[in-house]
Amino acid sequence: MFDLDQINVELLQKLIHERNIKMLRTLFDELNTVDLAEMVADLENEEILFLFKTLKRDISAEIFTYLPREVKQNVIKSFTSGEITTMLDNLYSDDIVDFLEEMPANVVRHVLLAARKEQRDEINLLLSYPQDSAGSIMSLDFVELESTDTIERALLKIKAQGKKAETISVCYIIDKQRQLVGTISLRDILFAQDDELVSDLMDLDMVFVETHDDQEEVAKVFARYDMSVIPVVNDELRLIGIVTVDDIIDVVQEEVTEDIHKMAAIVPVESSYLESSALTISKSRVTWLLILMVSATFTENIITNFEDRLAIIPALAYFIPMLMDTAGNAGSQSSAMVIRGISIDELSVKDYFKVLLKELEVAVLSGLVLFVANMIRVYFFMDNVDFKLGVVVSATLFFVIVISKLIGGLLPLIAKSLKQDPAAMAAPLITTIVDALALLIYFALAITFLQII
Amino acid sequence: MFDLDQINVELLQKLIHERNIKMLRTLFDELNTVDLAEMVADLENEEILFLFKTLKRDISAEIFTYLPREVKQNVIKSFTSGEITTMLDNLYSDDIVDFLEEMPANVVRHVLLAARKEQRDEINLLLSYPQDSAGSIMSLDFVELESTDTIERALLKIKAQGKKAETISVCYIIDKQRQLVGTISLRDILFAQDDELVSDLMDLDMVFVETHDDQEEVAKVFARYDMSVIPVVNDELRLIGIVTVDDIIDVVQEEVTEDIHKMAAIVPVESSYLESSALTISKSRVTWLLILMVSATFTENIITNFEDRLAIIPALAYFIPMLMDTAGNAGSQSSAMVIRGISIDELSVKDYFKVLLKELEVAVLSGLVLFVANMIRVYFFMDNVDFKLGVVVSATLFFVIVISKLIGGLLPLIAKSLKQDPAAMAAPLITTIVDALALLIYFALAITFLQII
Repeated sequence: MFDLDQINVELLQKLIHERNIKMLRTLFDELNTVDLAEMVADLENEEILFLFKTLKRDISAEIFTYLPREVKQNVIKSFTSGEITTMLDNLYSDDIVDFLEEMPANVVRHVLLAARKEQRDEINLLLSYPQDSAGSIMSLDFVELESTDTIERALLKIKAQGKKAETISVCYIIDKQRQLVGTISLRDILFAQDDELVSDLMDLDMVFVETHDDQEEVAKVFARYDMSVIPVVNDELRLIGIVTVDDIIDVVQEEVTEDIHKMAAIVPVESSYLESSALTISKSRVTWLLILMVSATFTENIITNFEDRLAIIPALAYFIPMLMDTAGNAGSQSSAMVIRGISIDELSVKDYFKVLLKELEVAVLSGLVLFVANMIRVYFFMDNVDFKLGVVVSATLFFVIVISKLIGGLLPLIAKSLKQDPAAMAAPLITTIVDALALLIYFALAITFLQII
Repeated sequence: MFDLDQINVELLQKLIHERNIKMLRTLFDELNTVDLAEMVADLENEEILFLFKTLKRDISAEIFTYLPREVKQNVIKSFTSGEITTMLDNLYSDDIVDFLEEMPANVVRHVLLAARKEQRDEINLLLSYPQDSAGSIMSLDFVELESTDTIERALLKIKAQGKKAETISVCYIIDKQRQLVGTISLRDILFAQDDELVSDLMDLDMVFVETHDDQEEVAKVFARYDMSVIPVVNDELRLIGIVTVDDIIDVVQEEVTEDIHKMAAIVPVESSYLESSALTISKSRVTWLLILMVSATFTENIITNFEDRLAIIPALAYFIPMLMDTAGNAGSQSSAMVIRGISIDELSVKDYFKVLLKELEVAVLSGLVLFVANMIRVYFFMDNVDFKLGVVVSATLFFVIVISKLIGGLLPLIAKSLKQDPAAMAAPLITTIVDALALLIYFALAITFLQII
């Protein structure tokens, strides 16, 4: 038995250069493909090609799936048509599509030409679904049974179709029109008698998604029903493919990354941080920076309008940054909680009154704490600020927190009710809105209580 | 066949009051448990108890798993010891623990007293692991084989242990010391000959986690190796339990919610938004509001120091909010991308130079765009601002974006290298830090170029 800690790229290179085929095969048989693929990615192209010719076909195919984009592209370019055909035969259909979606058009054409007719049709079908739809992430490799099958016959079918199937834990029962009529787990099949009928044992309470459903929707169905695999049907309820839960973790992470970026005023980018060019990242960020800069004109106008008063009590200006920051922070806290609540389906538009009430309570409590804290700060630590101004600033703090939390809590729900994305529409705007309101409240209180009209 | 759309709480109540046992059983046999549980939750306690006495035990147990906390508590309180024992027999060990963790101590005691000796030991074991550890989310119900088993014997064992097992797709091979020596998939067993040995077919490249590993770590292992079930071993490598991937989606979502809350300066709360009291939520938010308010003293001091200059050119004050907002936005964009990159293991501390370079490029590009945009804005739309001040403001904007993006990109990596949580430590502080820097840059440029010393 090999120990992963003793295996490294140098050892692989040594074995390849020594043409130690036996040792290489044993190594790739016994160690984990994901770990090995990471080392293979660091090899030279010819070394990788030698490996792929040496290893068992299914292992080569598995390693290939986990290689980085550029390495895949180099490998495919060096492959003969025959080698590509063999590789495709050993890959699951969803992995083929994942890989083709990353390749430039000429490589895709090259691969499709090498594919067998039937496989080419399958690939073209999968490539035709909109990006991020259930169709684009599904696999076509599943076990299908008929309701009139006996358990004995079902087991034979599983053995025949199962080698290539992505999972055999759940089998799908279809009728003559290929419509999905039920599901049966391999467990139920194993525990049944040979002569029992699939129709007597199958589950009729099918949960399925449609090819055009968004992958985020698919992830929610998985989470709601605790499933490990889900069937995908077309609009005539014909069974087309399956999605397995291991692919869904990636989907969940992708969607979350998108949400986090949107909340930070970034237009989501497809590729990863290090892989994206500076230009791509700049584009994804500059739009919101521009929008927010221009909308800051409001705050500028407010300050211009109160310019004369600022001249009378210059100390008024000290507190502007603190009040704006607190407004932004208080609003973002509320919006982050509500936006996240909406994404995980814990909050919906109909909860607006509950949110309003909760945010009001929280805001009053937090506002009081900050009022007291600021009074202490001004009274004991800021000799240059007079007591009356301190009260005005602290009171502003209180009202600013209340207003910011209400807006932060409600704006995402309003966006949702207008069929807008709460993360993209509500989060970035909140700071600008509450900043302007903070200034208005501040100056209004100052005028009223400090006699500076 | 029933149609879910025609089933509602009223129909369930009608069937229960008519004591229509046959119809109820068929209904619960054919429809999805998760959907039904949602309706059951709205029934009266006696109605639920009648249902549980009527339905098959495994279906009752499944429905029970999906009921809300308070309903579970009411049901358990009304159960006799015998009824509790039967229910426990039909639940998976991880579901029992999930449910007990939500119950008050007296209910837990009540349940443990009703459990069979062996089951009580299992439950106590699971309850003893730290919250959020692999041990706390694992299930004890798996199929174990020995390496000397033939395939025929393995199939018999699967049939014996499989009824209760959470999954039979993968079986675990242990030695005399209960140490994990390999895994074998049900697929491989089905495709093998009866007289082959498990030891010849089993996979040795085991991926496993330890009982004390954090659940976030477990989620990462699932994502890296695309697995559907993972074995959990103790520190002597003895096999203790398994974690299935469907439980991991919830873990991923929980961890992400925590990260999003931390990034919005909220101390993560265990319970959901609507279930948490206003006091709990206030506590989770007020700490950071206080810290950030006090740290705003820096910005206040900066403004106080430049008070005299603000008096000379009052227009200088107009732009303070816009500059601070842009600084905060630019910094948050960078920190959000880098923090998310760190959470999904795409970025690590050693990438600091790549991040520095990328953020610098992005910052210069974005800074130039905003410089030009602000020049246009000031020149064409703000008659009251003189050209020279416009240039100073636009130049400040450029430098502020560069500095904010560099700090936003690097601070999370610095937090990580100090073994701090980047989301909790870096994100909330960034706005305050870059605000202060924005003011310093602004005043420094103003003094240099507007002759207001």
